Amino acid sequence: MTDETLRGEDSIIQEFLAPLASGYPGAFGLRDDCATIVSPPGCELVVKTDPIVEGVHFLPGTAPEDIGWRALAVNVSDLAAKGANPVGYLMAMALPAAPARAWLKRFASGLQEAQLAFGCHLMGGDTDCRPGPLSLCITAFGSVPSGRMVRRGSARVGDQLFVTGTLGDAALGLALLKEPALAQWLGLGASQVASMTARFLRPQPRLGLRPLLLAHASAAMDLSDGLMKDCGRMCAASDVAAGLEAAALPLSDAVRKAVAADAGWLKTAASAGDDYEILAAVPAAGVADFTAKAAILDFPVARIGQIRQGAGVRMHQPDGADMTFERTGWDHFLD
Amino acid sequence: MTDETLRGEDSIIQEFLAPLASGYPGAFGLRDDCATIVSPPGCELVVKTDPIVEGVHFLPGTAPEDIGWRALAVNVSDLAAKGANPVGYLMAMALPAAPARAWLKRFASGLQEAQLAFGCHLMGGDTDCRPGPLSLCITAFGSVPSGRMVRRGSARVGDQLFVTGTLGDAALGLALLKEPALAQWLGLGASQVASMTARFLRPQPRLGLRPLLLAHASAAMDLSDGLMKDCGRMCAASDVAAGLEAAALPLSDAVRKAVAADAGWLKTAASAGDDYEILAAVPAAGVADFTAKAAILDFPVARIGQIRQGAGVRMHQPDGADMTFERTGWDHFLD
Repeated sequence: MTDETLRGEDSIIQEFLAPLASGYPGAFGLRDDCATIVSPPGCELVVKTDPIVEGVHFLPGTAPEDIGWRALAVNVSDLAAKGANPVGYLMAMALPAAPARAWLKRFASGLQEAQLAFGCHLMGGDTDCRPGPLSLCITAFGSVPSGRMVRRGSARVGDQLFVTGTLGDAALGLALLKEPALAQWLGLGASQVASMTARFLRPQPRLGLRPLLLAHASAAMDLSDGLMKDCGRMCAASDVAAGLEAAALPLSDAVRKAVAADAGWLKTAASAGDDYEILAAVPAAGVADFTAKAAILDFPVARIGQIRQGAGVRMHQPDGADMTFERTGWDHFLD
Repeated sequence: MTDETLRGEDSIIQEFLAPLASGYPGAFGLRDDCATIVSPPGCELVVKTDPIVEGVHFLPGTAPEDIGWRALAVNVSDLAAKGANPVGYLMAMALPAAPARAWLKRFASGLQEAQLAFGCHLMGGDTDCRPGPLSLCITAFGSVPSGRMVRRGSARVGDQLFVTGTLGDAALGLALLKEPALAQWLGLGASQVASMTARFLRPQPRLGLRPLLLAHASAAMDLSDGLMKDCGRMCAASDVAAGLEAAALPLSDAVRKAVAADAGWLKTAASAGDDYEILAAVPAAGVADFTAKAAILDFPVARIGQIRQGAGVRMHQPDGADMTFERTGWDHFLD
């Protein structure tokens, strides 16, 4: 072992990862092969695995802290959309080479920040060295009252569709990271640039919406592959259609500036991935209560459309025409 | 979509993966973002994630059926060693390109065989396309009576050490796959070659030992990285030492032939990975019962040594000298 490079799986685990598991007894200090978890009385566990890969889900050269945050956040985002309370996670790390100590320390600190923010702990995992890009495969565990997981396939005709936050920020942030000169062209100030890039680099699972989803949503999912595509998945699973209003899409000031400079950005906001906002279907009878409680919690939600009979998703424009999309969202086998 | 190549994550999931989840209600037909699981009354869940990567854990060109089997078997092997009953698994697939339909069909059939053999179901997962080798990251779920998971770190001085099956077969099988001419040099017949390569290609989780482990073992783990290294991990976690007897290592006839031709194969049997046998520490008072029950079940177990005070693992040879190892087993950051 040199001072800069850690050699040996066991030393990586004990020095950098075991501290992340110290708050979870069922991790056995990462000194066992397996971890244990129990569904609390009256609850079931919600589980999700969503890997991130360098060059696919984040840019090469991304700060290790941001990689650690993202790896956990994208999984906890799914739990949040299901109404589940995060408990813990397993992490399989695949590294292209023995990592530098400094890199591991920063990576672990990003995970630690995410754990604190989301209220969960590392439970176990695996560390491999193999060719190919850095890959982190986290499996996250949450709990919901038994039978209460908010499903994707249970939206009903007449439900109103809501999204949290604003759409397209992460897509704009990613574009700014790739092409910083874009900021000047779009007329964005430094704080707007920082805000948009943060929206891409540090996805924020919408855990605050959990109680409202459990109380009011007939269906929900997080938006990771773009509104049009993910809404299409909700509709397909629910055997319904959706009508969305382009004018109702919640946009940040920065994305509004982008749309003003190039109208194509509105289409991007409706179809680009990495928003990690929540799409929720709320039965009409509960809408007033849902929006009132969201206002009390100061949680931004916007009504963007409704569930209809039929199939597919249409995005209506103010002129009455439907917006057309060559692609509705990210697909690993088409993009 | 062409006839040979599937395009689109959703079609891959619905055509080839959803049938693997049809027996598990909490998978929601793979039409949701997440799956649910409950720990049965009086039980806790044992969880494990262990990815396999082409070129690292299996050879390029491996039959898709064998890849599917291996991906699940290496995880279920851990559950077996913990005394846990397999329930289900999540699978994150990372493919370097859109897969051929024929490949996916064969891969899914290997998983289906493994599911039937191990008694568990696909619960959910993720499918990505990214550069780098084919990678499958499975997270497996099992159940054990609460507090009864057989730990790695609870071996005690005086415990007798047992292993199931025979050691080194997979290493010999891998060597034969890489260099078929080795068979003639070692004097192995066709059925022995087939048997050894099957030991590498189709790891068999030792689920049959589960009741005996729960009843008698103070500690256990599966052997994936080599006996010397994995036994060292058990000792380190338990704060004890182990003394093993080289003459007691259970060897197949094929490996005995290899040892006769080249004594180095004995060292290989003690240090090479991929055995997926179980190492168990059994308190002296329970040894007679443990071996008697194993005999009744016709389950091969061999006593190979014992737990002592101190640290580290020593392999005693018949001449009284300790066997020396340059490397005790597989390490992703050293190999």
